[in-house]
Amino acid sequence: MSTDLMPNRYRPGEAQLPQREAALIARRDGVLGASYRLHYRRPVHFLRGEGMWLYDPDGRAYLDFYNNVPSLGHCHPEVNAAMAEQAGRISANTRYLEPRLVDYAERLVATFPPELDRVVFTCTGSESNDLALRIARLVTGNEGVIVSNYAYHGTSAAVAAVSPNLGDAVMLSPNVRMVTLPGPAGIPDAQAADYFQAQVRAAITDLNRRGIGVAALLFDSIFSSDGVWVDPPGFIAGGVDAVRAAGGLVISDEVQPGFGRTGAHMWGFERHGVVPDLVTLGKPMGNGFPIGAVVGRHAAMDRFGTTARYSNTFAGNTIGIATADAVLTILQRDQIPQNAFAMGLRLRAGLERLAKQRPGIRAIRNAGLFFGVDMGTESMAPAARRAMAQDVVNALRDDGVLVSTTGANEDALKVRPPLICQAEHVDLFLAAVDRVLIRIGTARP
Amino acid sequence: MSTDLMPNRYRPGEAQLPQREAALIARRDGVLGASYRLHYRRPVHFLRGEGMWLYDPDGRAYLDFYNNVPSLGHCHPEVNAAMAEQAGRISANTRYLEPRLVDYAERLVATFPPELDRVVFTCTGSESNDLALRIARLVTGNEGVIVSNYAYHGTSAAVAAVSPNLGDAVMLSPNVRMVTLPGPAGIPDAQAADYFQAQVRAAITDLNRRGIGVAALLFDSIFSSDGVWVDPPGFIAGGVDAVRAAGGLVISDEVQPGFGRTGAHMWGFERHGVVPDLVTLGKPMGNGFPIGAVVGRHAAMDRFGTTARYSNTFAGNTIGIATADAVLTILQRDQIPQNAFAMGLRLRAGLERLAKQRPGIRAIRNAGLFFGVDMGTESMAPAARRAMAQDVVNALRDDGVLVSTTGANEDALKVRPPLICQAEHVDLFLAAVDRVLIRIGTARP
Repeated sequence: MSTDLMPNRYRPGEAQLPQREAALIARRDGVLGASYRLHYRRPVHFLRGEGMWLYDPDGRAYLDFYNNVPSLGHCHPEVNAAMAEQAGRISANTRYLEPRLVDYAERLVATFPPELDRVVFTCTGSESNDLALRIARLVTGNEGVIVSNYAYHGTSAAVAAVSPNLGDAVMLSPNVRMVTLPGPAGIPDAQAADYFQAQVRAAITDLNRRGIGVAALLFDSIFSSDGVWVDPPGFIAGGVDAVRAAGGLVISDEVQPGFGRTGAHMWGFERHGVVPDLVTLGKPMGNGFPIGAVVGRHAAMDRFGTTARYSNTFAGNTIGIATADAVLTILQRDQIPQNAFAMGLRLRAGLERLAKQRPGIRAIRNAGLFFGVDMGTESMAPAARRAMAQDVVNALRDDGVLVSTTGANEDALKVRPPLICQAEHVDLFLAAVDRVLIRIGTARP
Repeated sequence: MSTDLMPNRYRPGEAQLPQREAALIARRDGVLGASYRLHYRRPVHFLRGEGMWLYDPDGRAYLDFYNNVPSLGHCHPEVNAAMAEQAGRISANTRYLEPRLVDYAERLVATFPPELDRVVFTCTGSESNDLALRIARLVTGNEGVIVSNYAYHGTSAAVAAVSPNLGDAVMLSPNVRMVTLPGPAGIPDAQAADYFQAQVRAAITDLNRRGIGVAALLFDSIFSSDGVWVDPPGFIAGGVDAVRAAGGLVISDEVQPGFGRTGAHMWGFERHGVVPDLVTLGKPMGNGFPIGAVVGRHAAMDRFGTTARYSNTFAGNTIGIATADAVLTILQRDQIPQNAFAMGLRLRAGLERLAKQRPGIRAIRNAGLFFGVDMGTESMAPAARRAMAQDVVNALRDDGVLVSTTGANEDALKVRPPLICQAEHVDLFLAAVDRVLIRIGTARP
């Protein structure tokens, strides 16, 4: 694992900054907690956004190929109009009857397989995963959670403790077990499912031997923080079966893959041909409005709901519901997942072409519009690959294109544009990567 | 403790409902998780809100003396305009430079004593308390948390485990200790501080003997879920000292008392003359927009921030910041806390008058516009007091006035109107309570 857990960040003194940005950073540091990090060696400063573009105070445009919260693009006028209209009418909480809450809940649940028939709203993806773990532990009576080696599932104490991606400074739960994914282990596709199942079985055995038992297998269906490991579709199915046989629940963390990001499907778990017990939602659900949800099978949801008290002040309030409702309407009406699928194909083809023309692209993995693009050559050491990925990210930033890095070694470009991206944006992005690879890729061994 | 943890709720079959509401409830039950509860024997159904009023589908108005999220009133046009204006411009996350985030952070921190000089934003009060516990545990190296007997601090796994108010079905952490408040124990004011300190010291001793140690004393500065126990001001100071002497941090949960609810002060801990190490914010911060924060001393905040990785996708995004900024501007410009103080005096005087005229008001406790009003007479058994409180709440609902209940026995009216409430609203509320007491209070022993 990389020694620097967030290499794409500003470090004081590393680069000369304009006075305007230096002054703003000094004020930030004087009032915000030290946990705040800025992206890039030279942080970007934005005052305006529209669709695929963000604008700095000088009016310079940056093409956004990174932000997966505004899936419908920055400042979507129709989403904002729905939010403002509802804000002017009422924002009731869920202890009062209000028809829009029920209308949206029905529409949302209808996008899932019929077994997943209940929803509880939250405000963030972290709250969704935290609640899903509470449900799984109460329903199974077990405490053990199985996650991937570099999983990240959020910020609350309970989910941070099952997020090995946070590194040594954040203590892991004694009840979490990590499994190695077949992709990073170099396992051929034909053996991937068996390999994953064997890993999960070993984790189950260890949890049972210690009397902890299995509450849940918790996975991001595109394993984004592990470096975007999506293939072969279906490789998780045997692990899912093993967890169920051991009495655990299966939780699909769709905070990143959900709402059409993977292109071919609305939900990432569909690519793997499994139906989870609980599904957690967040990021793009309100195109930036803080709203999330847990969707699940009624047996588990009802067992929790009739036993424990759970209420969430802001979650499900009418303004968030109206905003999310507009997002879902546009996603379905404008066939956004289909667009993500088509643009994912175009972007993949373009990157494959570049990989043949220039040294420096080692591998390309994607589902729809979520890409992991490994930087470096086979002969480069891990540290050199990581350094090259950071150089590429910062050179793209200087060229007005936003991406970041991911993976155990932080040497994969993390590319996830808003889903409204069009062919012209894909082509602009590819041209920028080409320019940067000419400048940087050839300068490295 | 009451056997029914949420007595003010709808129970199927208890009351005859109109077809329209019955149909909506059936749809709710078919799609929402079973954790959702509706207030009142006959749930209310709202389509519109404005200021102090909520309106049902027939246009009937309900006076809101319960909701402490829309402190500036329902659908505040100036707050909504700020939100909509920012939504049309940009909603940057905190990894990009954006001046409004820093402007608001500085304005917010300036409302605190100078020792409290750093802020980290969250999306909900639960996330704020969860983060504060993470900080306290990391900084102290200890795990123990001291809370009041019927404390409620939120919904995440970690804070639910230190929320005894959730009842037996939600497992408490082995590291939490509960302390009895002097008020409910019947301790005279002159001995309250010593009593509280002795309780805290006993908890510390027990935590230390078991090798757990004290991470934090976590308290709601008006002890609302215990039944609103606010007096005498300063009674917590000795407990605060004891926790600090034992190496723990002091966390003031201002999710309910904060932003002027207590009238005389912006923050509830100021009534007690203490300066906490960490302060948690939520509910009214965005007048309904999901935003919260942890404000704290830089030593603790920096120790956590430079050690652990913490980022929160939605928290601190510009739209939430712009909304919270408008709320703070209005609170200060329109002297809302001063209004809460004045209206609190008027409401208290009116309730004291009623208590003399009619049987059924046993005690009145308040700070600003947060009231606990004990129902029943001295001779009534706890179950009868609780039943009377529920009858009063439901009779007020039938008369078009919204309140609920709180306290260990759920026999105290929980009264917390939006802070914009005026004399006319206080008088309407008092008249409604008078009518209900005539109808219900005298029908009971």
